[in-house]
Amino acid sequence: VSGSVAIDWGTSNFRAYRLDADGKLLDERKASAGISTVENGAFEPVLMQQIGDWLKEAPAAPVIMAGMIGSRNGWVEAPYAPLPCSVADLSRRVTRIALSNGGEARIIPGISGIIDGIGDVMRGEETLAMGLDIEDGVVISAGTHPKWIEIARGRIIRFQTFMTGEFFALAAEQSLLSKLAIDPAGTDEMDLGFERGLQAAHQKAGLLRTLFAARSDVLLGRLTGGMVKSYLSGLMIGHEVLGAKASFGLPKSATLVTSDAKIPLYRKALAQHGVRVNTADMDKTLLAGLARIVSHI
Amino acid sequence: VSGSVAIDWGTSNFRAYRLDADGKLLDERKASAGISTVENGAFEPVLMQQIGDWLKEAPAAPVIMAGMIGSRNGWVEAPYAPLPCSVADLSRRVTRIALSNGGEARIIPGISGIIDGIGDVMRGEETLAMGLDIEDGVVISAGTHPKWIEIARGRIIRFQTFMTGEFFALAAEQSLLSKLAIDPAGTDEMDLGFERGLQAAHQKAGLLRTLFAARSDVLLGRLTGGMVKSYLSGLMIGHEVLGAKASFGLPKSATLVTSDAKIPLYRKALAQHGVRVNTADMDKTLLAGLARIVSHI
Repeated sequence: VSGSVAIDWGTSNFRAYRLDADGKLLDERKASAGISTVENGAFEPVLMQQIGDWLKEAPAAPVIMAGMIGSRNGWVEAPYAPLPCSVADLSRRVTRIALSNGGEARIIPGISGIIDGIGDVMRGEETLAMGLDIEDGVVISAGTHPKWIEIARGRIIRFQTFMTGEFFALAAEQSLLSKLAIDPAGTDEMDLGFERGLQAAHQKAGLLRTLFAARSDVLLGRLTGGMVKSYLSGLMIGHEVLGAKASFGLPKSATLVTSDAKIPLYRKALAQHGVRVNTADMDKTLLAGLARIVSHI
Repeated sequence: VSGSVAIDWGTSNFRAYRLDADGKLLDERKASAGISTVENGAFEPVLMQQIGDWLKEAPAAPVIMAGMIGSRNGWVEAPYAPLPCSVADLSRRVTRIALSNGGEARIIPGISGIIDGIGDVMRGEETLAMGLDIEDGVVISAGTHPKWIEIARGRIIRFQTFMTGEFFALAAEQSLLSKLAIDPAGTDEMDLGFERGLQAAHQKAGLLRTLFAARSDVLLGRLTGGMVKSYLSGLMIGHEVLGAKASFGLPKSATLVTSDAKIPLYRKALAQHGVRVNTADMDKTLLAGLARIVSHI
């Protein structure tokens, strides 16, 4: 039995899984060989360096890859699949690359769509969402650019992306607002700041005004320097949830896939709106998604 | 006649005006000696270096200063005046500094307030707004952090600050969105991008989602790389105007004080809402504000 090789190849990291014919995990490799570190398009040499031994043992094993490896800056730009999109659609729409050992690598397409008049794209999160094997529901993949993904009858039907994480980092680390921020004294201070930010997200004056309050409220003694970062976090996540609510409406429950640090933040923001949260492990879910797509090949 | 000396001393620039007893301009000095360039609190030596000759000729002339010179990082932190605030209030609430030549310098207070539950501060814009000598109306001082200032019966009654300019710069220059931006081919492309951004500001999904569209719409061929910057500009200014509308309501006309480059942008954004725009020269208006406050001393 040759099994298969499933790879999550992102901007910063490379992660490979060797699966048997039933999709069971046999071996695993991690490296900081993300696409941004690959020079002169030398993707195949990097692949061989990482998992050449696996491919020597099983040259006919299908190699399936998800993530930014299929982007404009990756190995080959893999065209986006349209909405709605099932596991079978993703399997069928892979972009094939002939390997010099005679084998073939396949890149899972991202998904694009125009949703409520706004163009949107994903690349990698479709595989993650499929890993949950949800029939109907909402998946929140809360990375740097969180995506809310709606699944109906097993197919991704629409999604929306927010700049939350990146704009939080810009605000908290690079803007004027960072100047008055200090390390919080403890979790109570952080929690209070986050709560204040969530509340401020409801202000009708909007994000651009309530951002400035992270400065003025410190100058006026209404917010401590230790609350600034968590206030900004609450404000951004609060806006994301309100934006998602205004465009798609909020579900009764959602599956959250994010870092351990962000889980309690999204839980609080969603609890405000009565949304129950299930969580799932990011790495395991992505692997499950890769395995599901491989099983359709 | 001793007249007076009026100074606009900001973070990056120093600008001094010598006025006669009637407030008429006699002489003017500019230097890039903003407070961020002053080392070890040596504000008096810098002041003397710039206008020591004026003070020698007229040692009794009041020296009045506006701007960040009165901030925590300035010469002395000048306490904020509360709302509502008139020219006479600003004159009365100056912070006095004894100069070693026996004279006295006065720092015009900024204004702070809690407006619709949001703390806000200004320092310098109060002097600018007073320079327009408006009895009733709205002033938009559109710098990096635009302020909308409402004046009733000659007094500043409320104001709100937006992070528009700074977040535009962060988005257009430092975020992932900057990666796909290229120089526009011409003004038509810029105008189209700006228009698209203004429209996108109305999307109920909110700023964090429509920001991401500056990337996805380029990837999908719905926006050109040359439109990215102007799209972001339209999106941010559009959100500012909508935020101001939601909190204060929009006036029938407003006086805009900003750079020549920003005037047409605000004109377009405000025209969408039927707001007529008058413009005023920034430097002249600030000088007029300083002169009005001096005349009350």
